[in-house]
Amino acid sequence: MTDADYIYGVRAVIEAIDAGRRIDKVLIKRDLGGNLVSELMDKITSNGIVVQRVPLEKLNRITRNNHQGVVALLSAVSYYNIEDLIPELVADGRLPFVVILDGITDVRNFGAIARTAECAGVDALIIPSAGSVTVGADAVKTSAGALLRVPVCRVRNMAHAVTYLEEKGFSLVAVSEKADHNYTQGDYTVPTALIMGAEDKGISPHIFKACSTRVSIPMFGHIGSLNVSVAAGIMMYEVVRQRLEANMEVI
Amino acid sequence: MTDADYIYGVRAVIEAIDAGRRIDKVLIKRDLGGNLVSELMDKITSNGIVVQRVPLEKLNRITRNNHQGVVALLSAVSYYNIEDLIPELVADGRLPFVVILDGITDVRNFGAIARTAECAGVDALIIPSAGSVTVGADAVKTSAGALLRVPVCRVRNMAHAVTYLEEKGFSLVAVSEKADHNYTQGDYTVPTALIMGAEDKGISPHIFKACSTRVSIPMFGHIGSLNVSVAAGIMMYEVVRQRLEANMEVI
Repeated sequence: MTDADYIYGVRAVIEAIDAGRRIDKVLIKRDLGGNLVSELMDKITSNGIVVQRVPLEKLNRITRNNHQGVVALLSAVSYYNIEDLIPELVADGRLPFVVILDGITDVRNFGAIARTAECAGVDALIIPSAGSVTVGADAVKTSAGALLRVPVCRVRNMAHAVTYLEEKGFSLVAVSEKADHNYTQGDYTVPTALIMGAEDKGISPHIFKACSTRVSIPMFGHIGSLNVSVAAGIMMYEVVRQRLEANMEVI
Repeated sequence: MTDADYIYGVRAVIEAIDAGRRIDKVLIKRDLGGNLVSELMDKITSNGIVVQRVPLEKLNRITRNNHQGVVALLSAVSYYNIEDLIPELVADGRLPFVVILDGITDVRNFGAIARTAECAGVDALIIPSAGSVTVGADAVKTSAGALLRVPVCRVRNMAHAVTYLEEKGFSLVAVSEKADHNYTQGDYTVPTALIMGAEDKGISPHIFKACSTRVSIPMFGHIGSLNVSVAAGIMMYEVVRQRLEANMEVI
């Protein structure tokens, strides 16, 4: 993490919020209190910023400067609100295609997925606020700049987001080794939300259950699982393939 | 690079060759001479080992130990001879599928491609002796162990290898942004050699020209190119898709 990726100190973070800086999340030392911290917490709440209480060691690992128990991680991108973005896509008369990353934590995987998404004409990436990567300078770099072009929505409650997409007419497609159907058998010529799970745990069980389509990529060796950015690429381009074959506009 | 990945010192390297250790390449200080070095060079030549003359600084970056101007990089895998392996595949009555990596240098990309190859039932990876990754412990790790399962052929002359494959009835498929045909239009239900180019330069022009099929993955954004491990994944699974659709055995 470089200096450009964070701001430290209670007052500096309050000022950053006031100045409208794009903040990924604010980390506060577990037992830190006082008037200034209360003021900070009020700003955090009223601006809908993600906050985490963390042990002192975590802050010390980020910076050796005098952080006073408060570090704000800056975001390299502006996040979109899913409830603003989706109706716009639908109103545009487009066949929407979004990709949900349910807990991807590796920055290189995230960057590679964003890059593929930009190339495949994906309309938005959706990630959870907690337990996901920080969309900082590293992620933008590994995405070859794609993260500055593909809208990223960050949602507090993934279950709500998934229900919202279903209500808007999206087919929810879970990609998982546990699924029985070959991924080429899904129909992606409808509004599609692909859901890719975390590197270790896969898709959260409650999200997996909510999906109408559950598909897997066939495996012929002993390893039995692909790198998630490769799996996401195969899936995104299957959506493209089907849409091109049906003479649909991809973008 | 860890200690397990190299051996240093003229005598130690001679002994390693005599003992049949798997050597990726031997690096020798540019102006190093003498009887022992001549002996080493004889062993290198008679064992068909790759050798490079390098500046002192390069050796010093690998080890701070007293390397005496000679470092052997060890390989984590045994390389196969393409002229042994291909006839075996053909004799097995299989529909062979090999992937040529023409100058991939990033270990993570190489590892991810090997992992996908193992999952997709690829019969062999083919890489050039020079200007490619060292298949060391890092590559094996990022491949999730796939490099211990998928045969790797290392060839001195890629043009010869490509001609050899063509003579054996392989369709040579170049994947390049410069190609006009959509990748789904190629026919992969025949013996197939996919050729992926280097991260920066793509496929060497003389190899590209030799290919009967040249395809590209369609791009709908502004970036215009995928990460090579993602592109390789999309291609390998298009081969799988076509073969499954034609009711062929993939492996």
